[in-house]
Amino acid sequence: MAPVKNGRLLYMNIPVDYPKPGRDTVYDDSETVDLDNAQLNGGMLFKILVLSIDPYLRNRMRDPSVKGFMPPFEKGKPIENFGVAEILRSENPKYPAGSYLAGVFPFRQYWISNEVMWSYPVEPMEGVPWSAHVGVAGMPGATAYMGWKEYSKSKAGETVFVTAAAGSVGATVVQLAKADGMKVIGSAGSDEKVQFLKSLGVDVAFNYKKTNTNEVLQKEGPIDVYWDNVGGPSLDAALANTNKYARFIECGMITVYNTGETYTMKNLNMIYQFEISLFGYVVTSLMPKYPEFYTEFPKLLAQGKIKHKEDITVGLENGGAALEAIQRGKNTGKSIIQVA
Amino acid sequence: MAPVKNGRLLYMNIPVDYPKPGRDTVYDDSETVDLDNAQLNGGMLFKILVLSIDPYLRNRMRDPSVKGFMPPFEKGKPIENFGVAEILRSENPKYPAGSYLAGVFPFRQYWISNEVMWSYPVEPMEGVPWSAHVGVAGMPGATAYMGWKEYSKSKAGETVFVTAAAGSVGATVVQLAKADGMKVIGSAGSDEKVQFLKSLGVDVAFNYKKTNTNEVLQKEGPIDVYWDNVGGPSLDAALANTNKYARFIECGMITVYNTGETYTMKNLNMIYQFEISLFGYVVTSLMPKYPEFYTEFPKLLAQGKIKHKEDITVGLENGGAALEAIQRGKNTGKSIIQVA
Repeated sequence: MAPVKNGRLLYMNIPVDYPKPGRDTVYDDSETVDLDNAQLNGGMLFKILVLSIDPYLRNRMRDPSVKGFMPPFEKGKPIENFGVAEILRSENPKYPAGSYLAGVFPFRQYWISNEVMWSYPVEPMEGVPWSAHVGVAGMPGATAYMGWKEYSKSKAGETVFVTAAAGSVGATVVQLAKADGMKVIGSAGSDEKVQFLKSLGVDVAFNYKKTNTNEVLQKEGPIDVYWDNVGGPSLDAALANTNKYARFIECGMITVYNTGETYTMKNLNMIYQFEISLFGYVVTSLMPKYPEFYTEFPKLLAQGKIKHKEDITVGLENGGAALEAIQRGKNTGKSIIQVA
Repeated sequence: MAPVKNGRLLYMNIPVDYPKPGRDTVYDDSETVDLDNAQLNGGMLFKILVLSIDPYLRNRMRDPSVKGFMPPFEKGKPIENFGVAEILRSENPKYPAGSYLAGVFPFRQYWISNEVMWSYPVEPMEGVPWSAHVGVAGMPGATAYMGWKEYSKSKAGETVFVTAAAGSVGATVVQLAKADGMKVIGSAGSDEKVQFLKSLGVDVAFNYKKTNTNEVLQKEGPIDVYWDNVGGPSLDAALANTNKYARFIECGMITVYNTGETYTMKNLNMIYQFEISLFGYVVTSLMPKYPEFYTEFPKLLAQGKIKHKEDITVGLENGGAALEAIQRGKNTGKSIIQVA
C-alpha cells in the first residue's frame, strides 16, 4: 500500500493568553507513513483513535524557564496527552497487533514507538466507547476518584462545593459525593451545564456567571469539602464560607492558566482560623495506590451507575480549536478528539 | 486592709489599622478590690502575675459581624489572654490559696472567678520563670511543638523555612527542626533578631527587610516544610521555591492582621502543581493529643535544652503599647507583661 498522510497537531508558540489555533498550535499533514513497510525497530505501529483535551495542557505551553509539574512542550513537536490507540503492527511480544493501549500519545494519526508513558491495555466493552478511556474511565475520572478517596474524608450529611462541576473531573466528583450522602453544591459556566448538573442529582447547581458564588455559599454553606478546579474568586468564596476543619482538594486552577494570578485573595487567613487543610495533588502520584480504578470504573460505566457527557471534535485538524475552547470553558462534557 | 486599686487594660475601639493605645486600648485604675473581704461566691481571688501578648489578639479586635476563630473582644471590657496567677484566697477545694494557675485571664491586676478557660496548675521550678508558662512552656511553645509534631513529617536532611523565626513560636520551631536534623532557613525583621537566630543554630538567618526572601530561597531551597506565621509575600516566595510534596504549616498571617489582604499572590497554582499540603490549625484543637508538652517542655527549659528570649513590659499600664509593638514586629523575644 502506498504511504498515507500522517497528520500532526504541532505546538509552535507560547500563547500570549489563550492558545490560538494557527499561531500557537498548527495542523501539519506534510508527513507520510508506509503502514505496511515502515521499520518498527522492535516497537509498535499505533493508529491513534482518540485523544483527550484537558485544561492542564495549557501549563505545558509555557516558557521552559518557568517551573511546572510537567515538562513544557517543545516547539515544532506535536502536543501530547492521554489517548487510545490500536496496534496495527507489533514487534513487541507484550502487545500483539490488533490489541489496544491507553496511555500518553503524541497528537498524530500514526506513531511508531516501543514505549508509551502511563500506558495500560484496554479492551472493547459494551457501553464503554474508546473515548471513555480518556474521560470518565481514564485520567479525568481517575483524578476525581483517587483525589476524592485520598483527601475528602467525606461524611454523610456534610456539604461539598465543586467548581467546574460539569467538567469531566467535576461531574465524576459530584456523583461520588452524592453516593457518599453529601449535600452537593456545584458551579458551572452555562445554563446548559447547570441542567447537566441537575440531571446528575446535584442539590444546588448554579451558573457562576449569573449568580454570585459567595451569596450561594452563604445561603447553602458552610462547606466541609471544597473541590477546586478553578482557583481565584471561587476559592476565595469557599474560604469565606468554610466550616471548621474543612478539606480543600486543590486539583486545578483554570482561572490562572491563561492570564496568570491577577486576583487578590481576601480570605487566605481563614486557612489557619478555621483549621482548613488544603491538598494539592497530581493524579499520577496516586495511581499506584488505587489500581482498582482501571478495572472497576469501566464496569460502573457499562452498568450506567456513573453518568458522563462527551464533547467530541472530529479530526485532528480541529484539535487546536478544541484546545482553545476548553480554556475558555466552551466545551460541554469531556473534550475529546476523534482522530480516526 | 483597705481596698487596693485594681488596674485594667480595656478594649475600647476597633483599630483602624494598628491598635492605638489611648484610643483602641485604655488603661483604667478606677476600680478597687478589698483583698481580705471581697465575696468569692465559691470561687477564687487571683493576683495576676504575668500576661502574654500574642499576634493573634489583633484578630479579636474586630467588628463582631466578621467571622473569626475566636470571639471578638467586647468594647469596654478588659483584653484577655494567657497568663499565670497566684491564688490569694480560695473557696474552690480543687485549688487552694497559695497555688498557681496558668490559663486565660483578663488584663487586670486582681480577678475573682471560679472558672479559668484552658487552665492547668503550674509550680515554681528553678530555671522556669512564670513568664515562661505563657511563652516557650505555654501557648506559643505548645503551638510550635504540637504543630510541628502533627504536620511537619520532618526528615533529616530536608529543608525548612520558618518566618517570624525569632518570635516565640518561630524560635521554638527552629530548635525542633534542628533537633530533627533539618537544614533551617529563618527570616526575621531586624539584625538583632537575626543574631538571635544564629545563636539558636539556624543555618541561614536573614533580615527580610534587607534581603529578598525569594532570592534567599532560590539559593538555599527548595523547601520541604514551610512554617507560616506571616502570609503574604513570604508565603508566595515559599510557594515559588517549594519541593514536591512539601508541607506548609499555616500557623498565622500577621501581614494581614492590621491591613487586610492587599497582596496579590502569584504562586498559589504551585499548590496543585507541586502537590503541596497546607495545614491551617489552632493549637487548642491539638492540645488533647499532646498532653506531654505541659510536663516535658518545662523540664527541657530548666535543663537549658530549649533556648528562649523574653521581651518583658513592666506594668499593665504599658500593655497597650506592647499590644501595638507586637503587631509592628518591634518586640525581640516573647512579649510579656509583668503585672505584679
